[in-house]
Amino acid sequence: MSDSRPVGILDSGLGGLSVCREITRLMPGERMVYLGDTAGAPLGNRSAEVIKDVARKTAVALLENNIKMMVIACDTIAAVAYETIESVVKDIPVIGGVMPCARAAALRTGNRKVGLIGTSATIRSGAFSNALQRIDESVQIHEQATPLFHALVEELILDHDITRLTAQFYLYEMIDLGVDCLILGSSCLSPLMEVIQGTVGTGMQLIDSALWTAKEAQDILTALDLRHESSAAGIDGSRFIVTQKPVDEARITGVYFGSQLPSLELRAQKQEAG
Amino acid sequence: MSDSRPVGILDSGLGGLSVCREITRLMPGERMVYLGDTAGAPLGNRSAEVIKDVARKTAVALLENNIKMMVIACDTIAAVAYETIESVVKDIPVIGGVMPCARAAALRTGNRKVGLIGTSATIRSGAFSNALQRIDESVQIHEQATPLFHALVEELILDHDITRLTAQFYLYEMIDLGVDCLILGSSCLSPLMEVIQGTVGTGMQLIDSALWTAKEAQDILTALDLRHESSAAGIDGSRFIVTQKPVDEARITGVYFGSQLPSLELRAQKQEAG
Repeated sequence: MSDSRPVGILDSGLGGLSVCREITRLMPGERMVYLGDTAGAPLGNRSAEVIKDVARKTAVALLENNIKMMVIACDTIAAVAYETIESVVKDIPVIGGVMPCARAAALRTGNRKVGLIGTSATIRSGAFSNALQRIDESVQIHEQATPLFHALVEELILDHDITRLTAQFYLYEMIDLGVDCLILGSSCLSPLMEVIQGTVGTGMQLIDSALWTAKEAQDILTALDLRHESSAAGIDGSRFIVTQKPVDEARITGVYFGSQLPSLELRAQKQEAG
Repeated sequence: MSDSRPVGILDSGLGGLSVCREITRLMPGERMVYLGDTAGAPLGNRSAEVIKDVARKTAVALLENNIKMMVIACDTIAAVAYETIESVVKDIPVIGGVMPCARAAALRTGNRKVGLIGTSATIRSGAFSNALQRIDESVQIHEQATPLFHALVEELILDHDITRLTAQFYLYEMIDLGVDCLILGSSCLSPLMEVIQGTVGTGMQLIDSALWTAKEAQDILTALDLRHESSAAGIDGSRFIVTQKPVDEARITGVYFGSQLPSLELRAQKQEAG
């Protein structure tokens, strides 16, 4: 069976385009409908209540697009509001970055010292460390919220001394502690892979949430026989919808997606009755 | 006449405590009721629509405290939503940082080259530059949105190489252009005065919005004969209300207020009917 329905990608901003990049690379035939609530971004410092509210509304809107799977491409939402989304999505699989990253880290760490970086809300939620502990309770987890990283990516300040200094500031303790595997628990951080790898050295493996979320989507679609193998490029039939247009659209989508993305479509925000 | 009602201080986060600090210094007898919508912070990258909505709700809630003046201590709100607030505040004066900063800069600049830094929303609004142009159309304005500064203050990364490098990054162009007067158009930036002055050198005067907003409050209260001269310290009878408690309360209020602040009170967020 080949299921030609698109994969739904739920995001709080634009960082989840990193997940779209990896999905396109792994499964070039799949179409996507992406919905990023850019008008409500950034979520990383907000309360769990606000994050759940955004998650629920975005999921409901995304479901209108006849999707075959919902990929939570924002790890803050995946960490804080996974159950909220599952409660509104009935008939299709829901995946996020937490479990695949935790599994990848547990498999790859040699010394059982795993690092985690992400938004303040993600770290506060404990979702990644709970998942890791469930997989292997001998793993020690060293967590660090990295709001400045997120601000740097939003400003597209990537290959810059400020970014390198910030990487040292956030990560020197993990280097000291001998962490050998670091989860980038935020798809927004994907554009910082190089700077971070340069800072921590080759002795620390990086687990990029964008990549592992896409791999999880591939695994689940394959397992459920929902893959769409097509010679047509799925990206051409994909839609990328946002609730507010970014000022510097081409540059910011380029940073996350890595090449030319179809134009972002603007979705009017509906007033909700309930 | 002496009016013993408190001064209302409206804020979107906690940066407006810098304004409270200056009010206490200039008018130690005045009581304040401060309301910071920390649950909705930060506002600096959000759309004008969202900012106006927060401004209106916060103003309505603050008005319940029998205040004699409303001081908009968040320059993003002052720049974007001044009229929104004026439309809900009928009988008492409303002041914000835009006009006093613009007047101070126009008076102080020698070469008519004025710089402005603030949030993205503040810069986009054009409020400060419009005010400056109305006062003196010969002034050249050089604007720079500084979201990283805001992220650094939120993280309390103040006296650090990252902060100094960021200051160079944002301000080298203004230094090159010979700007002789720089408006810190965001009360949140008050804790960065020293680092910024160290970067731009003594040839560039800084106009701190926190100070000039407080001076404006003093001028208007005096002009309207609403001052409360008391031997009792107003701070002791003041209230500081937020919609979400910060994790590191004492440290963050210390950075903005400069000394011990009474404990923050938590205000439940009401569901609005309309």
